[in-house]
Amino acid sequence: MSGLWEPIFGRSTIAATTSDRAWVIAICDAEAALGTACAESGLLDAASAQRITDACRQVAETADPAELGRHAAADGNPVIPLVRAIRSVVGATSAPSVHLGATSQDILDTAAMLVVRRALPVILESMNAAGEACAMLAREHRDTVMIGRTLLQQAVPTTFGAVAAGWGEGLDRTTLGLRAALAGLAVQLGGAAGTLGGWHPHGPAVRAAFAAELGLVDPGTVWHTERSRIAELGSALGATCGVVGKIATDVVLLAQTELGEVREAASGGSSTMAHKHNPIAAVTARAGAAQAPGVFATLLAAMPAELQRAAGPWHAEWPALTALLDTTGGCADRLATSLAGLEVDTGAMARNVPRDNIDVGHAGDLVDHYLAGRS
Amino acid sequence: MSGLWEPIFGRSTIAATTSDRAWVIAICDAEAALGTACAESGLLDAASAQRITDACRQVAETADPAELGRHAAADGNPVIPLVRAIRSVVGATSAPSVHLGATSQDILDTAAMLVVRRALPVILESMNAAGEACAMLAREHRDTVMIGRTLLQQAVPTTFGAVAAGWGEGLDRTTLGLRAALAGLAVQLGGAAGTLGGWHPHGPAVRAAFAAELGLVDPGTVWHTERSRIAELGSALGATCGVVGKIATDVVLLAQTELGEVREAASGGSSTMAHKHNPIAAVTARAGAAQAPGVFATLLAAMPAELQRAAGPWHAEWPALTALLDTTGGCADRLATSLAGLEVDTGAMARNVPRDNIDVGHAGDLVDHYLAGRS
Amino acid sequence: MSGLWEPIFGRSTIAATTSDRAWVIAICDAEAALGTACAESGLLDAASAQRITDACRQVAETADPAELGRHAAADGNPVIPLVRAIRSVVGATSAPSVHLGATSQDILDTAAMLVVRRALPVILESMNAAGEACAMLAREHRDTVMIGRTLLQQAVPTTFGAVAAGWGEGLDRTTLGLRAALAGLAVQLGGAAGTLGGWHPHGPAVRAAFAAELGLVDPGTVWHTERSRIAELGSALGATCGVVGKIATDVVLLAQTELGEVREAASGGSSTMAHKHNPIAAVTARAGAAQAPGVFATLLAAMPAELQRAAGPWHAEWPALTALLDTTGGCADRLATSLAGLEVDTGAMARNVPRDNIDVGHAGDLVDHYLAGRS
Amino acid sequence: MSGLWEPIFGRSTIAATTSDRAWVIAICDAEAALGTACAESGLLDAASAQRITDACRQVAETADPAELGRHAAADGNPVIPLVRAIRSVVGATSAPSVHLGATSQDILDTAAMLVVRRALPVILESMNAAGEACAMLAREHRDTVMIGRTLLQQAVPTTFGAVAAGWGEGLDRTTLGLRAALAGLAVQLGGAAGTLGGWHPHGPAVRAAFAAELGLVDPGTVWHTERSRIAELGSALGATCGVVGKIATDVVLLAQTELGEVREAASGGSSTMAHKHNPIAAVTARAGAAQAPGVFATLLAAMPAELQRAAGPWHAEWPALTALLDTTGGCADRLATSLAGLEVDTGAMARNVPRDNIDVGHAGDLVDHYLAGRS
Repeated sequence: MSGLWEPIFGRSTIAATTSDRAWVIAICDAEAALGTACAESGLLDAASAQRITDACRQVAETADPAELGRHAAADGNPVIPLVRAIRSVVGATSAPSVHLGATSQDILDTAAMLVVRRALPVILESMNAAGEACAMLAREHRDTVMIGRTLLQQAVPTTFGAVAAGWGEGLDRTTLGLRAALAGLAVQLGGAAGTLGGWHPHGPAVRAAFAAELGLVDPGTVWHTERSRIAELGSALGATCGVVGKIATDVVLLAQTELGEVREAASGGSSTMAHKHNPIAAVTARAGAAQAPGVFATLLAAMPAELQRAAGPWHAEWPALTALLDTTGGCADRLATSLAGLEVDTGAMARNVPRDNIDVGHAGDLVDHYLAGRS
Repeated sequence: MSGLWEPIFGRSTIAATTSDRAWVIAICDAEAALGTACAESGLLDAASAQRITDACRQVAETADPAELGRHAAADGNPVIPLVRAIRSVVGATSAPSVHLGATSQDILDTAAMLVVRRALPVILESMNAAGEACAMLAREHRDTVMIGRTLLQQAVPTTFGAVAAGWGEGLDRTTLGLRAALAGLAVQLGGAAGTLGGWHPHGPAVRAAFAAELGLVDPGTVWHTERSRIAELGSALGATCGVVGKIATDVVLLAQTELGEVREAASGGSSTMAHKHNPIAAVTARAGAAQAPGVFATLLAAMPAELQRAAGPWHAEWPALTALLDTTGGCADRLATSLAGLEVDTGAMARNVPRDNIDVGHAGDLVDHYLAGRS
Repeated sequence: MSGLWEPIFGRSTIAATTSDRAWVIAICDAEAALGTACAESGLLDAASAQRITDACRQVAETADPAELGRHAAADGNPVIPLVRAIRSVVGATSAPSVHLGATSQDILDTAAMLVVRRALPVILESMNAAGEACAMLAREHRDTVMIGRTLLQQAVPTTFGAVAAGWGEGLDRTTLGLRAALAGLAVQLGGAAGTLGGWHPHGPAVRAAFAAELGLVDPGTVWHTERSRIAELGSALGATCGVVGKIATDVVLLAQTELGEVREAASGGSSTMAHKHNPIAAVTARAGAAQAPGVFATLLAAMPAELQRAAGPWHAEWPALTALLDTTGGCADRLATSLAGLEVDTGAMARNVPRDNIDVGHAGDLVDHYLAGRS
Repeated sequence: MSGLWEPIFGRSTIAATTSDRAWVIAICDAEAALGTACAESGLLDAASAQRITDACRQVAETADPAELGRHAAADGNPVIPLVRAIRSVVGATSAPSVHLGATSQDILDTAAMLVVRRALPVILESMNAAGEACAMLAREHRDTVMIGRTLLQQAVPTTFGAVAAGWGEGLDRTTLGLRAALAGLAVQLGGAAGTLGGWHPHGPAVRAAFAAELGLVDPGTVWHTERSRIAELGSALGATCGVVGKIATDVVLLAQTELGEVREAASGGSSTMAHKHNPIAAVTARAGAAQAPGVFATLLAAMPAELQRAAGPWHAEWPALTALLDTTGGCADRLATSLAGLEVDTGAMARNVPRDNIDVGHAGDLVDHYLAGRS
């Protein structure tokens, strides 16, 4: 996915948080924080730590990702050439103090959590916009009767407010999951074989300081090959995509010419048919959401990390996690676009309801319950 | 999966909780609880509710699943023939009181949660056994030095205690997830289009009573087409399989002839080679765990449920959820078998550690931290 | 999946070909054929081979799968207890001649191909029925104008004949794939480490005779850990499910109340709404088809079989392959039911076409091309 | 995936064939070929066709993908802004002749096949290199005895030649599949609803000329919503990744310190441990191969395209197909690197073979059969 495709899938904003530059910055941030943490435990002097921090900032801004990539291939990860670059900036004396005690995975896992921490707010912003739109629709259409459809057959009436409330509940629920994931992001620090040997006897203190410096959680242990944290994060993203996909599917269905109950404010055109009102934001939201199950399965399948560092499964997480963040952010953005100013044709809704049955039971209560939960 | 295969994959016990009979019982339990809940709100008299309960119990014990299945095909779910059977037992007068106000999905979703509630303890029992085994190994081998291996290359030393602690942390973490899933299992009750119209104005009260009667959570809303609950449940199961797969992989690797650092107490034989000591429990645990990503992807992909009842995605959940429960329970059971009495060859471990480097850093602290977290 | 669920998902017939008994028979068939093949190369005398064949037939009919399963767990596959059972029937003298030179995987892989060979015709029968229905619809409605719908918006006209032709082409194309898979099913025979050492110098001859005896292909090599054959088979099944899912989705969409252009002959009812005409066969076909991507992903992910016998991935194929066969056969069966006697409401189709545009281009030619390709 | 990551996963070369520019060129090529094809049937005059071709060439070289992307979002695909750009270059008179009769999907599906046609040779080149390496290893080590390992336990001897032959057979088999996919790539041309109405009565002739012009197959029909071709293509790529993953896994296992039977010529280092010889090419090949099952599942799940143009599933193919091409090309490249000059430690192999058993059966014959099949 790049410039030609990103806007179609709503990824322009999220992509900036998962870009090469974003990763380079995150890795440099982690190395800088490690230096500071080591200094706090007396493993480094403060001046060295400061030099490392300065060098990291400089490298973060100036390093060429493509050149790093070329040097990264030999060892299989981008930390090694970045450490080299940072060391070259700090100079020979302080060079050994860079990356002190750490292994590439410590830095890359931690950098990944920083990337996630910067990507999740973008996703949450779209989710919030979509959620606000649902709340507005639910409020406005609390009593707009429409036909309920089960197995895509007309069934008995409900209200569009209740439908929008149901959409919103899914968004709110998965938003909570994303927030919990955000709050739980933890550093990884263990050294070559996960024993924190390089900082002994200050290992736990260094890890705590490392976490504090970065504003991440101190996990109290190592998780280099215990990847349930990645699975949990992926679950929150995957469920988000599922909810987005459900709402987008409903928009596409209700926007069908024959139903005509909703219409996107900025419906797409067609290269051949000027009269069409394609719900293109919802269509592309569905397409984005549909990437999640497969990509998340890749993350789950990568959990069995061999012994003290996975010989492939760890590396497999990088493209999968990036793709999952991108597609979640993208489909949430497209959904927000679809729902913003969604035009509701109450006349069409009324026409599809049988005259002799407008009993909508507790539909209003469902709306009230949903709205109360948000306030 | 049936009798020939279940024991190989450790599914004998879990399969009893997801069997046809288990589903029939769960559906009957839900119908009985609905009757009772309706009676509490005055929608039914107590005698009818009691007759329904009695009929449900009778049908649960005597109904022939295969015959139900044959009658279920026409309408696409097993609730309809079961309701017919229950109505036939309660007699013509009370028949209309059976399934009062409900739609098939209310009963089937709720029954699914009952099935899960009965299956999760089986999984948790295996997880607990595996966790106990890890704790014992961590305690016993707190200071047993072994070589750490990264990318399957010998790296620097760690201890087997730290390795076992890492295994155990994964088990404990996903066990927490399973317990949270268990505690959050909720009834679904909404009626034909999800408005609780059939119980108006007592809908919320009936739902609350229904939940109380079954010992499930009252969700405060409907979730017939908001399937994030299923995704969350699936995530807990999927992450569990990932952790199981990691540990089983490590056992298989450490049991390699050339490493010989662990051996399963009851290693499998071979049809051709009597001298082999196959870590067959770990091997089949891996195979079971490997089913999870794909099956969970199916659940995630089924989240976009169309409008007021999904025209396929809902039905797609049934085999996938059953398969996910079975494979999780099975692989956890096989892992527990693998770890129970795992023989640790400390001599082999010692031989693989370079003499000049036995610095294991905070390995002992990691064990202590793990064990402290369990007590 | 068992008696309660199989009919709902159309699996009753296919399930008989993948049942425990079917596997026991297939394993016994493979052992019998091996005996015969060894006799042809002079490794066994004819009388022993005949005794083995007789014993295999007896065991195939009488062995209790559940008991075999219990004994299979220790070694991780059902071949070992079955060989024991066969040996016990042939008696001590001929016992060593049973399973001569083979490893469990030889027998189980070959048995799997036999299971597939017996399952594929069931699938093909459903595909054929569905294909015939499409051909009839295409022929009958060659010139029935209907509106084409793109992104679920009314676009420009087409004919229902062209739509049915498109459905049929998908069925025919994947049917070809299934037939190619059927024709390519090969025995696996390699012995303990895949060198055919146990039959040396007659290995290739034994393999050829083994294949001829079973009516399978002689692969000319071993494929115990080269699993592209399984992937190809899975691809044929997965693509079949995709095509079934597409057609079933179209039926569900065209059957929507507001479109009303098709209706299943035996539409399903509802537990609450008598007036509904649920296209339940198409709905359950969709649900069955939706299992395929995840399950097939499991098969693909299991391809990296370690060294000379996979320590988990091979075992992971068994439930996944069975599930893929079952779900393919089931969804094809449900689709055939959906299409058989599908009621086409030409009046509704006409009403949805704009009066000023009934240009259907080459729609008729597309029908003719499709029908010509079938004759 | 971009510059920082591509080299790590071996994607630098393949990425050029799936880049934004590659897509822009492919779309322009398709539009140019359509103009020419229309001219051949007399629907356009030759001068207009030439002007279109010239304009397409100019736009292909100069259009800014990022700007196109921004304009593509409104309508959901990049064809619409590109057609606009081409029309603006040809001038007002010929503008209506651009994209004559076509719908965006015709052009994008055809462009996708062009992208695939340019990507597959890159993949095939890596597969060929890997295959050559296997053939060389098989030839050189035809009689190098090594221990066979089943379930990762030492079993009985085989030869490294036989192992390499098995690897090579998988490569050759999937190479055949890739070549068949390449040979079968077909244009899609149907117009707005798939009836070829815009070219009537020359539709089939235009399609044939369109295919001939592009060097793609004329499918004889439309496949806009019959996606088995995409599934077949995906299957060929997925199986390729599976085979790559198997060989890379074997390399990683045989390179373990304790086995030491192979070593990559350019083993990777470690950020902490200078003594390590990480088989980093194989490790990253495994990681790349591990992306395939999930991504391919996405393609399979997208097969059920709604009616005459999918409202999401079609769009879902674009990132999934691109990702599948990239990861296949990348992992094949990494495998070729891993195998090129793979160092085989015959001494280590000899040490791991029991002295009393060096019977390798038909191992040599397997090598000969493999080599004969390649010549």
